[in-house]
Amino acid sequence: MIDFCLVGAGFIGPVHAANLSAHPRARLTWVVDLNLSAGKALTEQYGARSTSDLAEALADPNVHAVIICTPPRTHTPIIEAAARAGKAIFCEKPIDLDLAKVDACGVALGRTNAPFCVGFNRRFDPTHRALHDAIRAGEIGRPEMLILSSRDPEISPPDYVAAMPYGIFYDTMIHDFDMVRWLLADEPVEIYARTACMLDAKQNPHRDPDTAMVVLRMAGGALVHVNSSFRAVYGYDQRIEAFGENGMLISGNQQPTTVEHHGKDGIRRDPLLYFFIDRYAESYKRELDAFVQALEAGTAPPIGFDDGRRALMIAEAGVRSAKTGVPVAL
Amino acid sequence: MIDFCLVGAGFIGPVHAANLSAHPRARLTWVVDLNLSAGKALTEQYGARSTSDLAEALADPNVHAVIICTPPRTHTPIIEAAARAGKAIFCEKPIDLDLAKVDACGVALGRTNAPFCVGFNRRFDPTHRALHDAIRAGEIGRPEMLILSSRDPEISPPDYVAAMPYGIFYDTMIHDFDMVRWLLADEPVEIYARTACMLDAKQNPHRDPDTAMVVLRMAGGALVHVNSSFRAVYGYDQRIEAFGENGMLISGNQQPTTVEHHGKDGIRRDPLLYFFIDRYAESYKRELDAFVQALEAGTAPPIGFDDGRRALMIAEAGVRSAKTGVPVAL
Amino acid sequence: MIDFCLVGAGFIGPVHAANLSAHPRARLTWVVDLNLSAGKALTEQYGARSTSDLAEALADPNVHAVIICTPPRTHTPIIEAAARAGKAIFCEKPIDLDLAKVDACGVALGRTNAPFCVGFNRRFDPTHRALHDAIRAGEIGRPEMLILSSRDPEISPPDYVAAMPYGIFYDTMIHDFDMVRWLLADEPVEIYARTACMLDAKQNPHRDPDTAMVVLRMAGGALVHVNSSFRAVYGYDQRIEAFGENGMLISGNQQPTTVEHHGKDGIRRDPLLYFFIDRYAESYKRELDAFVQALEAGTAPPIGFDDGRRALMIAEAGVRSAKTGVPVAL
Amino acid sequence: MIDFCLVGAGFIGPVHAANLSAHPRARLTWVVDLNLSAGKALTEQYGARSTSDLAEALADPNVHAVIICTPPRTHTPIIEAAARAGKAIFCEKPIDLDLAKVDACGVALGRTNAPFCVGFNRRFDPTHRALHDAIRAGEIGRPEMLILSSRDPEISPPDYVAAMPYGIFYDTMIHDFDMVRWLLADEPVEIYARTACMLDAKQNPHRDPDTAMVVLRMAGGALVHVNSSFRAVYGYDQRIEAFGENGMLISGNQQPTTVEHHGKDGIRRDPLLYFFIDRYAESYKRELDAFVQALEAGTAPPIGFDDGRRALMIAEAGVRSAKTGVPVAL
Repeated sequence: MIDFCLVGAGFIGPVHAANLSAHPRARLTWVVDLNLSAGKALTEQYGARSTSDLAEALADPNVHAVIICTPPRTHTPIIEAAARAGKAIFCEKPIDLDLAKVDACGVALGRTNAPFCVGFNRRFDPTHRALHDAIRAGEIGRPEMLILSSRDPEISPPDYVAAMPYGIFYDTMIHDFDMVRWLLADEPVEIYARTACMLDAKQNPHRDPDTAMVVLRMAGGALVHVNSSFRAVYGYDQRIEAFGENGMLISGNQQPTTVEHHGKDGIRRDPLLYFFIDRYAESYKRELDAFVQALEAGTAPPIGFDDGRRALMIAEAGVRSAKTGVPVAL
Repeated sequence: MIDFCLVGAGFIGPVHAANLSAHPRARLTWVVDLNLSAGKALTEQYGARSTSDLAEALADPNVHAVIICTPPRTHTPIIEAAARAGKAIFCEKPIDLDLAKVDACGVALGRTNAPFCVGFNRRFDPTHRALHDAIRAGEIGRPEMLILSSRDPEISPPDYVAAMPYGIFYDTMIHDFDMVRWLLADEPVEIYARTACMLDAKQNPHRDPDTAMVVLRMAGGALVHVNSSFRAVYGYDQRIEAFGENGMLISGNQQPTTVEHHGKDGIRRDPLLYFFIDRYAESYKRELDAFVQALEAGTAPPIGFDDGRRALMIAEAGVRSAKTGVPVAL
Repeated sequence: MIDFCLVGAGFIGPVHAANLSAHPRARLTWVVDLNLSAGKALTEQYGARSTSDLAEALADPNVHAVIICTPPRTHTPIIEAAARAGKAIFCEKPIDLDLAKVDACGVALGRTNAPFCVGFNRRFDPTHRALHDAIRAGEIGRPEMLILSSRDPEISPPDYVAAMPYGIFYDTMIHDFDMVRWLLADEPVEIYARTACMLDAKQNPHRDPDTAMVVLRMAGGALVHVNSSFRAVYGYDQRIEAFGENGMLISGNQQPTTVEHHGKDGIRRDPLLYFFIDRYAESYKRELDAFVQALEAGTAPPIGFDDGRRALMIAEAGVRSAKTGVPVAL
Repeated sequence: MIDFCLVGAGFIGPVHAANLSAHPRARLTWVVDLNLSAGKALTEQYGARSTSDLAEALADPNVHAVIICTPPRTHTPIIEAAARAGKAIFCEKPIDLDLAKVDACGVALGRTNAPFCVGFNRRFDPTHRALHDAIRAGEIGRPEMLILSSRDPEISPPDYVAAMPYGIFYDTMIHDFDMVRWLLADEPVEIYARTACMLDAKQNPHRDPDTAMVVLRMAGGALVHVNSSFRAVYGYDQRIEAFGENGMLISGNQQPTTVEHHGKDGIRRDPLLYFFIDRYAESYKRELDAFVQALEAGTAPPIGFDDGRRALMIAEAGVRSAKTGVPVAL
């Protein structure tokens, strides 16, 4: 049984808490949150202990691993403290928004033996993974083009947007940049990005990019397109298309049921799942299970620090391209 | 160039006239209709001659073939006259509604060498034929169950219904009975049918069955289900499903475009093609071409008199089952 | 927290045990199985107690409810014992194979106040339920035809088949008969059934029907078709189609992923889920949750004894029709 | 009846000849081809006259319109000669590969009153047009992103490629650039393009780009992505996706039948139509009909000289971007 300390009880924290609680060999032992009442809601539900003091939880020798769900800019000190305390670390993406901070954190982490995993959960989505495995199995031969559509149904609240300018790169497409690296087993050498503000001033008061198109050129020659939007009113739109010398693979969207309604106006099916937590419910479970299995086996967690660093590097270069209007070499 | 005399300018007549006119090796020479103005509309469009006197057209030695599109109860004397005149005959289904009359006509026809084809056009639909060919090629092994959905968007006008009671068997499902024989290359040994009047008295004043379910048992053991309705408000619904020892084949519906609309309320595609003439446009062309090719080659037309007779026999037995409530042996 | 005693550790027992263990307000306390080692496997996994003596478990005053997963012919004495002991009862379908025994059991049960639920889990499948709710909401107006395809990928082992002749009615289509009643909120007045043995003597040594087609006529006039097979090599095929005056609703099949592969030979998607426990994983969870909620609220469980009895009655009449070859009135 | 002179009997010429011949109010009168035997094949089939001398055909006062199907670099003198002869002109795309020549031709054409139409047939594809009309009808509100996949199953023969370097822009994506303008009713202000040679030296001996990704920024703010390949082994892949403030519209691919095969390995449907002439058969018919109707009505043909020029301008800018690696302003 592996005891976890969850740091950050808001947003994605409860998802991890529920998955820990349902895992046969993991247990939620501590919840750390500056907002004690947020932490207590979780601890009461799952029978864990609550504190606002990270050090108190890290001092518990029973705690084997830490899950970091706080805002991105707070991640690196928590990572470093947890590593010093000899805990295994599962950190939500992005590691941080500042590459220099990430590099310093990587150095500190490297001085310890703390196992580290970054939460690019999409790698564990059964459909995306089936596409990945089919590419690896050579079903389409060499991949030549990759197209990712990555669209949220809504923009984040203004304060969240204010805290992370160009979040469409740092928070959203960073998932896609990781997928590109993972799916193609290759690194990009150049990125070109164009953005737009399509939402009105009420929805997007900070005029942060809410729409983006990206082209990546990979070291191996493949061309990649990513598009993103914060206004897919029809639901959470998450598609991947891999085109290769011998065919094409498509990872399609997900709907709650398979019901078809045939009426005078046409054939209607369910809208897409709307919320990312519903769409990726299974991948959140599976990434945690993979992390637990790695800790049990003493092997490296599935997605390492360098994976987190490289996805951030691509996001940052994308922002530079979007701001300057010219491609940026990587 | 094969010269045709079209008998019956209404309803399906214009479809055949247009297809003849577009055929590179066929020509519409005569249109025979008691209603001279109906005939003239066609002849003016396609440059043919018009008459209300069948004998006049049959006397033309240039006429090679006759296409019979008049109401079913008038078919047999026309067939016999055309056969006596030495013409090849393409007759719309059903040959007649009365098996005794059909048998007598068959005897008369047999005394001549007139090539004869009955217009079960669905055998020439590309999708249904692909399913047929896949069965023949053994893709699902021995067929074990066959399910046909055969639904019209509307009931025929009251006078048409009055002229052909139980038309859902004689006019609609007779197509399906032919498909069953053709797809399975087998004959039914028993039929069970249940019908209902679901339309209201205004739409269906004669209270003729507008809804039907049929189960057939085939000599080879396969079980077959056919369902039919005159109220598929969502369009002309024509599906076939063949289930066998090694898999299943489905011939699906047709829509005018592939457009998908994704909105808040779900994903919407076009309604089905609404009119049978649109849905089966290609099969009408191809059956005529197959008939022309058979005449050119001097081979038997693709769907013979006996095919027409057997489909009628099944329809008649189905009506008896529907009326008595018990299965009827064939 | 509601404590459960599970009776019958084989087959579907482990599914209920896992769902109980994951339920936030239920607990597996006892496992009763004549085969102690089967029971122990479950109890070790979930921390319950194991016995081969039903009475021992029923004597535990902490036990609130009993889940019966033994073979059908053993259900009624267990139901009666559990009812006498004042336990709530969740019984797998069918209640029994003999209507007289079921009626006697119903009388015995009626003398107690024991809450009773029969496990027609398909009512809780999200897609089937969405179709049900759409019918109730009037989306297709009055239902006129209902078509259910209910096909297993394999036949049960010979001893299982020997223990339940005509199991395609009593074990498989009994689900569909329940769905028909539930979806249409109506009762059948007549059933016609035809069966076949399509599997070879090795797969089906008892020559029990492995293929079936059924037509039901409902009191309200709707026509219903059910087809079933024990050889859907392409996976667990479970479809429902409801046709009504204003349209059609289809509950389609389920696949593990949405991946599409486009190659020279065509477009390929995943095969269907193969195992009923995968296909209906969610419905098993939801039916148990509904049972727990009913116990907590003190309301009637969602699917009553009479529902189990009526589905059996339809199955039995279907068997009589299949044996005699004529429709049977209900 | 409108008499046509077809110039260029190879490649797409026979498609237009067949459509002319089937059109109720058009007629193929002359075929002009330097290769007399190519022209004669067509004239024999359709009963027209054949010549290798354009002037001879243009001197025929019965000729009302000219269809130009020769290689692109030969178009402008034919356009100019036809215009001087007072003929209406239908010219295949691209008008030419050299913008200066096109501009000079435009000036010459402007001195006459010759009606002119450029053959961007995709505007007449029923599915693409339905998407266009839905955008215009406001079904997705303001379009924000447009994504076009435009992939051929094979590269052209080496001599064809040698005659038109960067043909993936000038010959293939020029269609998409026209579609972008038409669908969005807007002009691009910037283009960024990246290309690759993915085919091997045997298939693509001239190492001309066979794979491309493009991003366009429109004057109105929308972002556009186009991708193209000459190796879609799975068939002719032609999709358009329009994303807007209120939803998304997708124009999907086309298959010859709707047959689904369910087997152990999954669910298989037909491959896509392979040949552009099959995929766009209907659009070639409809564009010609629209041209005929415009001539009859005396209105401007549906796609003007300026449309041809602007699409070429975008293609040319795209080539410059692909060569320099930086975005090019338009």
